[in-house]
Amino acid sequence: MRIDGLQYANWSEKIFRQLREGGVDAIHVTIAYHENFRETVLNFEKWNRWFEQYPDLIMKGQWAQDIDIARETGRTAVFFGFQNPSPIEDDIGLVEILHSLGARFMQLTYNNQSLLATGCYEAEDMGLTRMGKQVVKEMNRVGLVIDMSHSSDRSTIEAAEYSTRPIAITHANPHAWSPALRNKKDAVIRAVTENGGMFGFSVYPHHLRDKSDCTLESFCEMIARTADTYGVEHLGIGTDLCQDQPDSVVEWMRVGRWTKEIDYGEGSKSAPGFPRMPSWFEDNRDFENIEQGLRSVGMTTGEVAAIMGGNWYRFFAESFGPKAGG
Amino acid sequence: MRIDGLQYANWSEKIFRQLREGGVDAIHVTIAYHENFRETVLNFEKWNRWFEQYPDLIMKGQWAQDIDIARETGRTAVFFGFQNPSPIEDDIGLVEILHSLGARFMQLTYNNQSLLATGCYEAEDMGLTRMGKQVVKEMNRVGLVIDMSHSSDRSTIEAAEYSTRPIAITHANPHAWSPALRNKKDAVIRAVTENGGMFGFSVYPHHLRDKSDCTLESFCEMIARTADTYGVEHLGIGTDLCQDQPDSVVEWMRVGRWTKEIDYGEGSKSAPGFPRMPSWFEDNRDFENIEQGLRSVGMTTGEVAAIMGGNWYRFFAESFGPKAGG
Repeated sequence: MRIDGLQYANWSEKIFRQLREGGVDAIHVTIAYHENFRETVLNFEKWNRWFEQYPDLIMKGQWAQDIDIARETGRTAVFFGFQNPSPIEDDIGLVEILHSLGARFMQLTYNNQSLLATGCYEAEDMGLTRMGKQVVKEMNRVGLVIDMSHSSDRSTIEAAEYSTRPIAITHANPHAWSPALRNKKDAVIRAVTENGGMFGFSVYPHHLRDKSDCTLESFCEMIARTADTYGVEHLGIGTDLCQDQPDSVVEWMRVGRWTKEIDYGEGSKSAPGFPRMPSWFEDNRDFENIEQGLRSVGMTTGEVAAIMGGNWYRFFAESFGPKAGG
Repeated sequence: MRIDGLQYANWSEKIFRQLREGGVDAIHVTIAYHENFRETVLNFEKWNRWFEQYPDLIMKGQWAQDIDIARETGRTAVFFGFQNPSPIEDDIGLVEILHSLGARFMQLTYNNQSLLATGCYEAEDMGLTRMGKQVVKEMNRVGLVIDMSHSSDRSTIEAAEYSTRPIAITHANPHAWSPALRNKKDAVIRAVTENGGMFGFSVYPHHLRDKSDCTLESFCEMIARTADTYGVEHLGIGTDLCQDQPDSVVEWMRVGRWTKEIDYGEGSKSAPGFPRMPSWFEDNRDFENIEQGLRSVGMTTGEVAAIMGGNWYRFFAESFGPKAGG
């Protein structure tokens, strides 16, 4: 079973076919960076059209069991998430509304301070806000997963502890391996995994050691060491694949409507666009490379299967509905 | 089994308890008259709060099977509908979005011309518009029932014929029995029922012979004759109960934001408010009176059961999802 914990591609029939070629059973796709509620609904509508147009390749994913249906029918189940809480605006009632529409992950922040918590690029980190605590409770109630991939340390640790259900960092790598601002320090990964949460490894070059030149061996060795430290059952893949996106999109991701100046985010003035992907992961047909790489660094078949999809499956099954027995 | 095909009460714990006292297993409630998409979402949110606050009295209804669950657990299943297409604005993609949120009925018009068809108070009736035909097709695809209660004759007949699935008039009475503008002429009822659709009898005084003074016998006799003419299997109850609403609400229903002048609708300058309900149907505890009344005019137990809920149940089961077998 192969599940990718995060993608934001420029979707097309070509990519849907590559998902099938790569044996990807499920993906979590981002459908909001800075979109407000109505704009996010337009993105749900866009996906509804794709589900109607490509019924043999993709299907809407709402529950872990949908992955079984996708596997039985040779399709990829598509689960929705937001990298920012902008879709709920200032209205806690929208948490359940968006969950009803199919949202399953929501980051509490995207780089900046939000109404809920602090993003990883702010100078100060105030932790969960008043509304943040209320929204975490509501997300716990309905089964919308808290994703802290772009949040700052204290906010992430507080979210992991305040949440009564496991949370996720869907796409990042350990800071100790590659000290990017977006990568996660030991205390952060520990807080998430010790509370039952998931950590998804990113293939986005800005999160890799040696960026686009990172070797498959280095990436897989890092995964094996992370498993030794935090437990293999908490780990998955979250490629952050942004395939076929024009550079205007990475600018939108970074600046949205919050500034009139350019913010280069993880890029720079001399390299403002999307970075070149590593040669061993250029699109969805390359999951096999990661799988082989994990075996090459000595992981067992069971461990590799857990990381490639089994752990995400279990997490999806536990996370997307009201809490069992309560 | 008791199912009410339309209510628009000023909801409260009192009314939810009366639904239980009256043995009402399911109701279709109006959550939009003139609301745009975002405003309608706020109304879904309001109901989500009620479902959370009164889990022992009510539950969200999405599928006919939810009525079985409601019966087994002693609750009333609440199904949602709109009396106007205003919630979809000019965006056909919102049909599926709103269906995902739980909408199950949508009137193509409310008294006035809409983007889709002509309302019953217009001087001219142009039938289904260009967008109207597209939306009917989309409603057919996702399982959102076309309701023509407030539409004009030609528009209703065209909708019944153009739709590939049965449509409904959830709340009205035959014009021949009480010649109100909102009541339906023979050709209209025939078009709806001959195409498999449903006709729900209203207890709203403006639709009754002798209005608030209508007798139970006259009402039930009318139902029996309608069954003789169009077939008992197409008939149900749609009380149009507007319990506990202040008169400001009937003004909102009539004028929305489309005029700066007062429009009295079915009322008049001397009687602009909600009319007094007939003594035999004042709230949800009075369904027993209608049931007894139908038996008194000679209907069989099976016929009475069909009208009180069985027919709506079958219609719900056939109408709310994608069409069986394609």
